Amino acid sequence: MNHWRINEDTFEPHLKRVHSQETVYTIGNGYFCTRGTFEEGYPKAGPATLLYGVFDAAPLVKEELANVPDWTVIQLFVNGERFRLDRGMLLDYHRSLDIQHGLIRRSVLWESPQGVRLRITSERFASLADEHLGAIRYNVIVEGATDSHPVEIVLRSSINAAQGNYNLMHFNTLDQGYQDDLLWLLSETKKSNVQLAQTMSFTSDRIHFHKEVIASDIAPGIHLCGTLALGESITCEKLVTMYTSRDGVEPLSTALQHHQELLNDRSQIYDHLLEQHQEAWYHFWQQADIIIEGDEKAQIGVRYNLYQLRINASSHDSRYSIAAKGMTGFGYRGHVFHDTEIFVLPFFTYAQPDIARNLLLYRYHLLKAARKKAESFGYEGAQYPWESTLDGEEATPPAILHAETGEIIPVLNGTIELHITASIAHAVWKYWQVTSDDAFMRDYGTELLLSTAMFWASRAEKQPDRGDYTISDVIGPDEWHEHVNNNIYTNYMARKNIQVALQTLEWLKTTSPEKARKLATQLNLTEQRLSHWQDVANSIRILQDAQTGVFEQFEGFFHLPELDQAMYAGRRDSYQAILGIEALQKYRIIKQADTLMLLTVLEDEFDFKTKKANWDYYYPITDHDFGSSLTPALHTILASEVGQFNAAYRLLMKGALVDIEDLRGNTSEGAHIACAGAVWQAVVLGIAGLRINKAGYTTNPCWPKGWTRLAFTIQHNGKSAFIDLRPNMEVTNIDSIEKVEVPVEVSRSNARRRA
Amino acid sequence: MNHWRINEDTFEPHLKRVHSQETVYTIGNGYFCTRGTFEEGYPKAGPATLLYGVFDAAPLVKEELANVPDWTVIQLFVNGERFRLDRGMLLDYHRSLDIQHGLIRRSVLWESPQGVRLRITSERFASLADEHLGAIRYNVIVEGATDSHPVEIVLRSSINAAQGNYNLMHFNTLDQGYQDDLLWLLSETKKSNVQLAQTMSFTSDRIHFHKEVIASDIAPGIHLCGTLALGESITCEKLVTMYTSRDGVEPLSTALQHHQELLNDRSQIYDHLLEQHQEAWYHFWQQADIIIEGDEKAQIGVRYNLYQLRINASSHDSRYSIAAKGMTGFGYRGHVFHDTEIFVLPFFTYAQPDIARNLLLYRYHLLKAARKKAESFGYEGAQYPWESTLDGEEATPPAILHAETGEIIPVLNGTIELHITASIAHAVWKYWQVTSDDAFMRDYGTELLLSTAMFWASRAEKQPDRGDYTISDVIGPDEWHEHVNNNIYTNYMARKNIQVALQTLEWLKTTSPEKARKLATQLNLTEQRLSHWQDVANSIRILQDAQTGVFEQFEGFFHLPELDQAMYAGRRDSYQAILGIEALQKYRIIKQADTLMLLTVLEDEFDFKTKKANWDYYYPITDHDFGSSLTPALHTILASEVGQFNAAYRLLMKGALVDIEDLRGNTSEGAHIACAGAVWQAVVLGIAGLRINKAGYTTNPCWPKGWTRLAFTIQHNGKSAFIDLRPNMEVTNIDSIEKVEVPVEVSRSNARRRA
Repeated sequence: MNHWRINEDTFEPHLKRVHSQETVYTIGNGYFCTRGTFEEGYPKAGPATLLYGVFDAAPLVKEELANVPDWTVIQLFVNGERFRLDRGMLLDYHRSLDIQHGLIRRSVLWESPQGVRLRITSERFASLADEHLGAIRYNVIVEGATDSHPVEIVLRSSINAAQGNYNLMHFNTLDQGYQDDLLWLLSETKKSNVQLAQTMSFTSDRIHFHKEVIASDIAPGIHLCGTLALGESITCEKLVTMYTSRDGVEPLSTALQHHQELLNDRSQIYDHLLEQHQEAWYHFWQQADIIIEGDEKAQIGVRYNLYQLRINASSHDSRYSIAAKGMTGFGYRGHVFHDTEIFVLPFFTYAQPDIARNLLLYRYHLLKAARKKAESFGYEGAQYPWESTLDGEEATPPAILHAETGEIIPVLNGTIELHITASIAHAVWKYWQVTSDDAFMRDYGTELLLSTAMFWASRAEKQPDRGDYTISDVIGPDEWHEHVNNNIYTNYMARKNIQVALQTLEWLKTTSPEKARKLATQLNLTEQRLSHWQDVANSIRILQDAQTGVFEQFEGFFHLPELDQAMYAGRRDSYQAILGIEALQKYRIIKQADTLMLLTVLEDEFDFKTKKANWDYYYPITDHDFGSSLTPALHTILASEVGQFNAAYRLLMKGALVDIEDLRGNTSEGAHIACAGAVWQAVVLGIAGLRINKAGYTTNPCWPKGWTRLAFTIQHNGKSAFIDLRPNMEVTNIDSIEKVEVPVEVSRSNARRRA
Repeated sequence: MNHWRINEDTFEPHLKRVHSQETVYTIGNGYFCTRGTFEEGYPKAGPATLLYGVFDAAPLVKEELANVPDWTVIQLFVNGERFRLDRGMLLDYHRSLDIQHGLIRRSVLWESPQGVRLRITSERFASLADEHLGAIRYNVIVEGATDSHPVEIVLRSSINAAQGNYNLMHFNTLDQGYQDDLLWLLSETKKSNVQLAQTMSFTSDRIHFHKEVIASDIAPGIHLCGTLALGESITCEKLVTMYTSRDGVEPLSTALQHHQELLNDRSQIYDHLLEQHQEAWYHFWQQADIIIEGDEKAQIGVRYNLYQLRINASSHDSRYSIAAKGMTGFGYRGHVFHDTEIFVLPFFTYAQPDIARNLLLYRYHLLKAARKKAESFGYEGAQYPWESTLDGEEATPPAILHAETGEIIPVLNGTIELHITASIAHAVWKYWQVTSDDAFMRDYGTELLLSTAMFWASRAEKQPDRGDYTISDVIGPDEWHEHVNNNIYTNYMARKNIQVALQTLEWLKTTSPEKARKLATQLNLTEQRLSHWQDVANSIRILQDAQTGVFEQFEGFFHLPELDQAMYAGRRDSYQAILGIEALQKYRIIKQADTLMLLTVLEDEFDFKTKKANWDYYYPITDHDFGSSLTPALHTILASEVGQFNAAYRLLMKGALVDIEDLRGNTSEGAHIACAGAVWQAVVLGIAGLRINKAGYTTNPCWPKGWTRLAFTIQHNGKSAFIDLRPNMEVTNIDSIEKVEVPVEVSRSNARRRA
């Protein structure tokens, strides 16, 4: 058993499986991701390579990450017969994703219709050491022939420009050519005019193979033709580099020069590049790995999600952020949601703070658009869009089409799902708490906190009768209830946003008075205004049952009739799909954590009793099965805290395996990146019970059955700590690079013990 | 001066012009049309081949004619340099569309960057004799070289599957191959699963040229490579056949067999196929030509429109009809509007009645869907969709997106623009009047008339106060006023629909009593029901000023303030674009003929005085410049009748040249097919003043300046009549194949004379 591999030992040809496995076997490096399609093609396959921040316009959805010409194509012909898995006979098949080294490998024993047997082995990676590079090693051995003659082998390697997002094409070929053994294709997005240069080399260890260069606007290629006797083999190496006009360079000349340098470097080019690539992955795992012993399934599942987090985030670019599906598929079009700040960011904040900083800088850069959005609705400050792309304007489609009826269904999230603004502010605050990156807070964070606080203060409506403030007509995280008033998550997070903004302003006045003055002038922070903010924070309406401590998700929620879930025991769809959008609003059933998300995100504001009471109330009325992929793993944290250890483990695994096992049936559209972030949180903040404070951190593990070790590294206050936990130890093992003060573990609940 | 040619003697490289000329130089045969893109390609060119009735799903618009893999590609390389009009030097350029023979020809003298001069001549047709066949002859002569060495010529002929409608791809490659000198590609639409087989042969007169077959899923091809000395030439012939699964055959084997038979037929294949093709066009022109002497511009313009009508209509298929842009571009997505029945059908009814019959059968086949539509709105009978595709369900998009803002704009036409149902009934009636095709009327027409009459009778609301019937909340042909009551065109045409239905039922009772009984049972035509219909027809509200005879376009129209058009003298856009949809509704300004269309369509129901009064009232308040392409040419008929001869000629030419001169700036999206039909009507029913009656026909020409002859053929009562008019002749010349009784021409207005 290898704890680093996803394996597939049979080829399952039905398309739903083919397409979900394309997502699972995605490789990437933060600059680009390439789905796990086969080099030789397959009918109705969905090849896709998406580049970080390379968008093109699309109907209804503003813009989407644009599928670029497919660099992976290698077609193989033997005696004129084409190798493809739907032809000939498949005698042996194995594919694996090596998470540790960011590699996919496939080995196939195939018999052509005429009876020639070939063993075909391929290996592919998107270099983590050189983000512009994709590489394939392709090996063919003749294992059986029909007679004593050598067989004729043709290998057609090309870059295929006939690609689209599903069926929407985004690139036009501008030019293509061949020079110094390099084939190149220069293309451009149709509307956004991003230029992309792709260069390709294709070489083999068989010098007697004839090489031919194919000029073509849509599939320029290099063909290798020759013969192999029984037992002989050919190994080809395909290298492709990609540069775009977003890289701040002239793409074509830069790509050609870079590729040429790679070729000149040495003889064992592929091996050398692979080595550098593996070295880069080694460094990543040193920082980010979670070691679980005693539970192989959990170990692989968790690592797979960490792998997804890494390949979908740029190591240096702050002009774009991580999309709902990253770059692994066309779902949600590469748009950025609150998924990033609430679900994904904690991983980066604790494990890769440089990337976390860039993700927050992305939001900072888009303050202007957020201010414009607030203004357009008649408010002050900055209101972030529900869906964000490059320019920060609202990218939520105003409506979607019903897949069957073609009916237009208005989408309200862009207009009234407000809480993302507070979630972004929270992520900034949390980043600061964990990293103590004062420079970031001074230069960027404070302005963002103040601007978003200003939005909330202007958005809250004073109620003269009760003297408090309300926020009406919103959608909370539970998106099944629209046009609600005083959603608990929204109001509480808005209050927190204002509070931390005021707190941070005080800090800035002390530490950087000049910057504080500048901001005060720029944002017109009069005494009167700040005191109004304070008033809003003090008096915003928070609905809570005084006796039970249960928060009311929104005004009137407690009075909705409960849905008799027993009536739907055999359902295979969400309650929304079954009951319809309108009817569903009338019931006390929710899509995903709302109140419970609040208790998780602001965990240190609530006591055990409150958490327990709310868990008991909300957990049973949440559609855990079909509501959303976002929260199962996140629920693990609260489940651990309130002693629901069986639930905690079940929810964790539901998150960890969501894509590997296609649990939600939509992995074909891309990996669930928010869920991947939630898996990290579930293990570290939930199972391990990690909490930080000024002095250091505490852990409070609850051990799932069989787990014998749980270890990971965090960055805290600029220092690295390796936390190595084993059951039945009074104190956690500490082996940090620079040791930090570790207080004795404090059990915050009596109930914590093994599940 | 050739009266059959559209010419272009310089290449104008700006894209708007390139794309509109692609439309103008479209070839076709009713089975497919292919836009006039260049064989060698051009940056951002818009190649398209659309097939009659081959649709695939598309967002918002239900489905659209799906652009098939481009069969025209021939790339030419000389000494490795690629021929394209944006490279090297263009020394001479000429392109022509030979309307008479359905051919485009291009001749180019081009100098490569290295200085090799080539004369490249190509000729292309979509065979009218064999609708599955497209053919290209491609000739290259070396006219200048840089030294005494022969130049290396490579010709890459392929079928390019990387096509979309704009950027929406519709076809997946299923398979491709090569056998017996034929390359083939089998593809399938992504959603509607229509299979398309394309076969290709590519041969030359240079046997020393090396031939290479390129296997590729997206651009399979045949390459010819060799050398030519100065003064030498090569001539290639590319033949492509196309069959789809809609043809009722196994597409691939049928295509291969058909193509093989063509090749086996004889040696001079291309010449032979061209000859058959020209023969078919000759037969068409014998039936359909309009000869105009003394006005070359009008002659060519009118013929060009007849050419468009022919290439966009199938000669035999009644499962689809003629789209707003035919198969010449992506505009209006191949959807069928009332354009067909009101604008286009008269040409076919008079000149090609077999095709007219099929176009009406298309509507008859879709009665079921029309009944469903009526029922869904709570009405009886059959209500036709505003936009129709293959299944007859409403295909009008429920909303469109604003091109700049992305805002969703609801489209009401599918819900409340009702008059198309009466227009279809009228076309059936008119077809019967002209052709006397009693069998059609018995088997199909009567049922359609009764079903649509039933719709109107149930749709009309009885007003107890005035005792009449109204039709409220509609859009009339003037689409700039929505939610109007008692639109004159709608109400009058609805009445006519009921009247002819009752009349036809009486006829059927006499001529086919059994069929009449069956229909009566099937449609539940009780005495009570029929008497209600009669009541509606008698008492439907028709708004007309008793004194002036001017009809009121809808209730309240007379009271709207007039728009001061002088204030917009310099405008370059429609009033709708300038004022906005909402504001425009409040003014007495209209998009296109509404009342005047009624007076044209039902011309024999109104006297001269009424026509004149309404012309004087409505003509000045119509946006002739930017409102619509539909009516300028149609206005010619009324203009001729009321003695507005200058206007008549101006309007005719505006219609005749709409695409050749891209008068509306949107020819790039496809030819204006309704306008083409209107041009035929303008000349025959307007300028010539043709009217038919039981006994025969009359003409009443008004002669535009310079015209010395106007001649055309009509089919009437199953007989053909050649009508040859010259000015200053008391009686028209008759030279009909089977002579019909021709009464002496009667002048219906005193004012008819030369303009």
